[in-house]
Amino acid sequence: MVMTDLICKKRDGGALTKEEIDFMIDGYVKGTIPDYQMSAMCMAIVLKGMDDEEILNLTMAMLNSGEKIDLSGIQGIKVDKHSTGGVGDKTSLVLCPMVAACGLKIAKMSGRGLGHTGGTLDKLESFKGFSINVSDEDFIKNVNEHGIAIIGQTADIDPADKKLYALRDVTGTVPSIPLIVSSIMSKKLASGADIIVLDVKCGDGSFMKDIDHARELATKLIAIGKGAGRKTAAVVTDMDQPLGYAVGNALEVKEAISVLKGEMQGDLLELCLTIGSQMLMLAGYAKDADEARKLLKDALDSGRALDKLAEMVEAQGGDKKQVYNPSLLPTAPVQVELKATKSGYIKKIKTEEIGLISMELGGGRKTKDDIIDPAVGVVLAKKDADKVETGDVLATVHAPNQEKAEEALLKLAECFELCEEKIKREPFIKAIL
Amino acid sequence: MVMTDLICKKRDGGALTKEEIDFMIDGYVKGTIPDYQMSAMCMAIVLKGMDDEEILNLTMAMLNSGEKIDLSGIQGIKVDKHSTGGVGDKTSLVLCPMVAACGLKIAKMSGRGLGHTGGTLDKLESFKGFSINVSDEDFIKNVNEHGIAIIGQTADIDPADKKLYALRDVTGTVPSIPLIVSSIMSKKLASGADIIVLDVKCGDGSFMKDIDHARELATKLIAIGKGAGRKTAAVVTDMDQPLGYAVGNALEVKEAISVLKGEMQGDLLELCLTIGSQMLMLAGYAKDADEARKLLKDALDSGRALDKLAEMVEAQGGDKKQVYNPSLLPTAPVQVELKATKSGYIKKIKTEEIGLISMELGGGRKTKDDIIDPAVGVVLAKKDADKVETGDVLATVHAPNQEKAEEALLKLAECFELCEEKIKREPFIKAIL
Repeated sequence: MVMTDLICKKRDGGALTKEEIDFMIDGYVKGTIPDYQMSAMCMAIVLKGMDDEEILNLTMAMLNSGEKIDLSGIQGIKVDKHSTGGVGDKTSLVLCPMVAACGLKIAKMSGRGLGHTGGTLDKLESFKGFSINVSDEDFIKNVNEHGIAIIGQTADIDPADKKLYALRDVTGTVPSIPLIVSSIMSKKLASGADIIVLDVKCGDGSFMKDIDHARELATKLIAIGKGAGRKTAAVVTDMDQPLGYAVGNALEVKEAISVLKGEMQGDLLELCLTIGSQMLMLAGYAKDADEARKLLKDALDSGRALDKLAEMVEAQGGDKKQVYNPSLLPTAPVQVELKATKSGYIKKIKTEEIGLISMELGGGRKTKDDIIDPAVGVVLAKKDADKVETGDVLATVHAPNQEKAEEALLKLAECFELCEEKIKREPFIKAIL
Repeated sequence: MVMTDLICKKRDGGALTKEEIDFMIDGYVKGTIPDYQMSAMCMAIVLKGMDDEEILNLTMAMLNSGEKIDLSGIQGIKVDKHSTGGVGDKTSLVLCPMVAACGLKIAKMSGRGLGHTGGTLDKLESFKGFSINVSDEDFIKNVNEHGIAIIGQTADIDPADKKLYALRDVTGTVPSIPLIVSSIMSKKLASGADIIVLDVKCGDGSFMKDIDHARELATKLIAIGKGAGRKTAAVVTDMDQPLGYAVGNALEVKEAISVLKGEMQGDLLELCLTIGSQMLMLAGYAKDADEARKLLKDALDSGRALDKLAEMVEAQGGDKKQVYNPSLLPTAPVQVELKATKSGYIKKIKTEEIGLISMELGGGRKTKDDIIDPAVGVVLAKKDADKVETGDVLATVHAPNQEKAEEALLKLAECFELCEEKIKREPFIKAIL
């Protein structure tokens, strides 16, 4: 088999066989197929596509390129979620304790943030002493004892994806549903959960800019999950504005705790209830969404969800006092408010830009090696189609110093677009598949 | 400027600006743009195309990547031809002496063969002592004195094309009219001729398998030649069978000499008269094709064309006795005939396969470093829609030994497809543009 022939086949719109895909991924990981052939193949895939069988074969080939996590030592039903990435996305911080409180098992490997999106691990490290480096034995033990553990990747999972993703990033071959699906699903399948729920973001702050593409991506993700024998569901949710109000690590943890305490309504709570319901239904813990939501709300109202977060923080070396008293979490020295210079209604928020502002304040990484400041970020005061009067606070900047605060304020002022007429809020949950 | 952005632009169907193309070619030659980005760009160009302005800018950027040949020391009108490559294509060996005998100047840099197609330099080296390595001064002197010189490339012409071509060959990005046109024309423009006539092959033995694609390629080649200020014409000719009858270096030289002596009619003569006429008309040496053909035929009938070949061979160190007595050229030790096992009419000849048989006999190169045997090859006895009786000779194999001859014979038998009904010959010259 010769890689050039496979490239020509895909270039001309043909479908690659399982053997061809295995040959390609195996050769690429081993280095016998060079980057310049794989990048030409990726561009041919971007422009000519892949059918469902090809995507499944590509996913399995990538999955088989590395180690797989063995969760067989865990009693119960293991659930996992994945989000395609957004600004202010602290879903895991709320959802995971909530469903763990309902009896599902969360044995989650999470990632760090890069660019305008944040990572769950960075957020959790806002807790003093919290460690994401946990041995395999302790990981399994923690999940069995507390129902929840969220750690960094230990095993060499999916080296094909690591190599391919780095290549795609610099060769204009990121926007391809077959390549995105195989990248996400090969990692998720390797992580060993029985049930997977995917949150496909749609809008300005995400990769999928429109609902049709987001729905297509969600459908393919489910098809591959089911094709690999896992119970899989997906939701398509709005990313035309940040999720919740806070953007920045400790700021997002504080917001998550507010939701877990039952102090906050809104899109973040709604998303967690929606994904959580899917998990409980797929696990057979609830017969329909109503029953599932009752179980989840009870976990919140009873305080059991918050306790689960505290248990996990403590089990991983963190200070659980910060869970019950979030004012003990890191706080930025400078806080400045952005005030509205005219009245109207919030029409649009430049979501990606807000993620970048938080990064510039020190809350995110420009390169993999940057060290982040947990305290900084932006907290919105208005979003959706909120009414605004002149002088109202639109957002607060949490900055390490006055200079950075001023810079951020100038940029932040450009992020809000107001209109004069009252407008209708778009539904936040766009589809449940 | 960032290469990834340019790849994305082309991927999404955008047109690259002159500055963008210059940045890309300059960076690629210098090595600041890696192969894996350029191969993704090439695949995007294959699948999304380029407009005429982009092709011209790409051609000029490639041309400017290297040295250009200065032919200003040559008196008269310099003409050049280029063929897209075929099997048995000895056109230059006939055409160049013929038009030189009419007063045009041939200062030609030619190439070697690779794979199933032969190279003019390899063919000329069938003459004992013939050297393709000629100093720049002697090259100019020879053209001024004899009107003709054909040598190997001396200067570092078009390094962008060398690097790009090698990359395209292994990344499935060869079949793209913009990339083919810029590759051909950047080299031709660097070679300095005033008039360029292009021979676009069409059919089994060539890259362009159908007339529409061949015509499109010819049209684009002319547009770029004219865009760069050169007089340019093109012909589209049939490559559904080898050109002429001989395939193999000395065998092709012998056939060329037969045509120069006026001993042979047929497609090879017709092609040389057609291209030669275009050259004479573009040079203003003839007002129409009839007048041009008279001049060319007179050059043949008078023996002046053959004398020009002899002059060139002698000026470049070769033995001109072999021109006047081709039986002195290398001859293969074993000759075996392929005979027809049934009667009928020649319907199809697997042209590329015949090129490969000649290569396997030792007449061509599998890799750049192979040494070729000038004596071997295949000579057809029947082609076109010729009538064949059982027992007629279809072709003769010229081999280095009996074993290779037998091997070649077996393969050659598969190359002829006969049919029962008399069929019409397709016109050999398919278009003159």
